[in-house]
Amino acid sequence: MPTKEVIVLQDLLGTNKKIAAEIRTELEKRGILAVNLMSSPGAGKTTLLEQIVVRLKAEFHMAVIEGDIETERDAERIRAKGVPAWQITTGGACHLEAKMIGRILPAVDPGLDFLFIENVGNLVCPASYELGEHLRCVLLSTPEGDDKPKKYPKAFITSDVLVLTKADLLPYLPFDIDKVVREALDLNPKLRVFVTSAVTGQGLDELISHFRRSREELRGRHA
Amino acid sequence: MPTKEVIVLQDLLGTNKKIAAEIRTELEKRGILAVNLMSSPGAGKTTLLEQIVVRLKAEFHMAVIEGDIETERDAERIRAKGVPAWQITTGGACHLEAKMIGRILPAVDPGLDFLFIENVGNLVCPASYELGEHLRCVLLSTPEGDDKPKKYPKAFITSDVLVLTKADLLPYLPFDIDKVVREALDLNPKLRVFVTSAVTGQGLDELISHFRRSREELRGRHA
Repeated sequence: MPTKEVIVLQDLLGTNKKIAAEIRTELEKRGILAVNLMSSPGAGKTTLLEQIVVRLKAEFHMAVIEGDIETERDAERIRAKGVPAWQITTGGACHLEAKMIGRILPAVDPGLDFLFIENVGNLVCPASYELGEHLRCVLLSTPEGDDKPKKYPKAFITSDVLVLTKADLLPYLPFDIDKVVREALDLNPKLRVFVTSAVTGQGLDELISHFRRSREELRGRHA
Repeated sequence: MPTKEVIVLQDLLGTNKKIAAEIRTELEKRGILAVNLMSSPGAGKTTLLEQIVVRLKAEFHMAVIEGDIETERDAERIRAKGVPAWQITTGGACHLEAKMIGRILPAVDPGLDFLFIENVGNLVCPASYELGEHLRCVLLSTPEGDDKPKKYPKAFITSDVLVLTKADLLPYLPFDIDKVVREALDLNPKLRVFVTSAVTGQGLDELISHFRRSREELRGRHA
C-alpha cells in the first residue's frame, strides 16, 4: 500500500503535470519556445544563459526566469545583458514547479521568441517537475566527473539536450567525454549532446542553432 | 493554514529527527564518531573519503555508508581501499534519511572509531535530514563558484565543517576563497573551514586532525 507521503507526492506531481501542459499549450499558441535548464549547483547554467542571450538578442526577443533558493543574483546577471529576467526565490524548495511559472506568465511579453527557465541547482528533484518547457536541457560540467549520468539517471533520461560545460578545464581533469556520451545515450538514445565552454566559446553556436531550429519547428507545427 | 503537503513534510521531518537522535545516542555509547558529508554531485565526497580512510586506517577502525540514487560505484571505491562500506541506493530519493542509517546500524562493527556517511549528491534536500551524525561537513568544490553559500544557505547554516575541495584548480578558475569563507561565516560563525585538494594533499592532515579531536571529545564526554 502506498504511504501517505507517496499519495501526497503523486497528487502533487499529477497537478504539476496538468499545469505544465496548460503552460506549454499557451506558449505554443504564442510561438514561444520554452527551454528548461537543469544541473547541479555551479555547472554553469547562468554563465551559459549569459552567452546564449548575448548571441541571440540582436535577432530575437527573449526573457529568462531564474529559479534560486535565495538571492536575486542570477536575474541581475541576465538583466545586465539587456534581457528581461524574473527571479523566483523558492525559500528552501529544491526545484521549480509549473505553478511558479504560471504566476509569472501573465507578465511575459506575448511577442517573445524564446523563454529560458533556469531551474534551482539540483541534479535530482527538478527532473520530476515539468514546467511547460519544449526543450529540457541538462548541463554536466567537466569537474563534476564522468560518472554522473548513471548515478543521477532521471535528469538524463527526461532531457532532450545534454550540454557538457567547462570543456576548457579538460586538460586539468580526469574526464572521459566518450564514456559520458556513451553512458548518457545508453540511458536516453534521443539525447542531443553539445560539448561547450563559455570561456573559449566552443560549441555555443551549435547549441544555439539547435534552439533556433527547435523554435522554427514549433512555429511550423502551429502555423 | 498549512497545506496537506506541509503537514506531511513536518511529520516526516519530526519522525526523522527522533530516529536520528536515537542513532546518535547509540553511536555515542559505543564511542563511534559519525560524520555526514553533504555536497553537490561531483564536489569530491568519495575522493575525499578515499583520502581520509587511507590516512586513518592504520590507527583506527572505520566504516563508510554510501548514499546514491543508483549504482554501487562509490561503495566499491571505498572497499578497494580496504575499508568496509555499505551502499544505500535510494532509487530516486534525493537525500538519505535517518531510518535508512538505522537499518544498517545492526550490521556495523560496534568497535568502530569512525562512521562516515556520504549523502546523495545534492546541496539542498540533505540539509533538512539529520542522520544521527556528530559532525556535519558540507563540501564546496572550487569549480562550483564562489557564490554558493548565499544561494544554498541551509547546507552551510546546519554544518559544523566546510571543506573547500579541488583547491588545485584555483589557478584556472575565478574563485575568491576569502569571499566564500566570509559569506559562509556570515551565515554560520561556528563553521570550521578547511581548504583542501585530494590531488596535492593540501589541507587533508588538518581536516583529519579535526576529526580525531572531535572523536576524543566525544569519548571524553562519555568516559
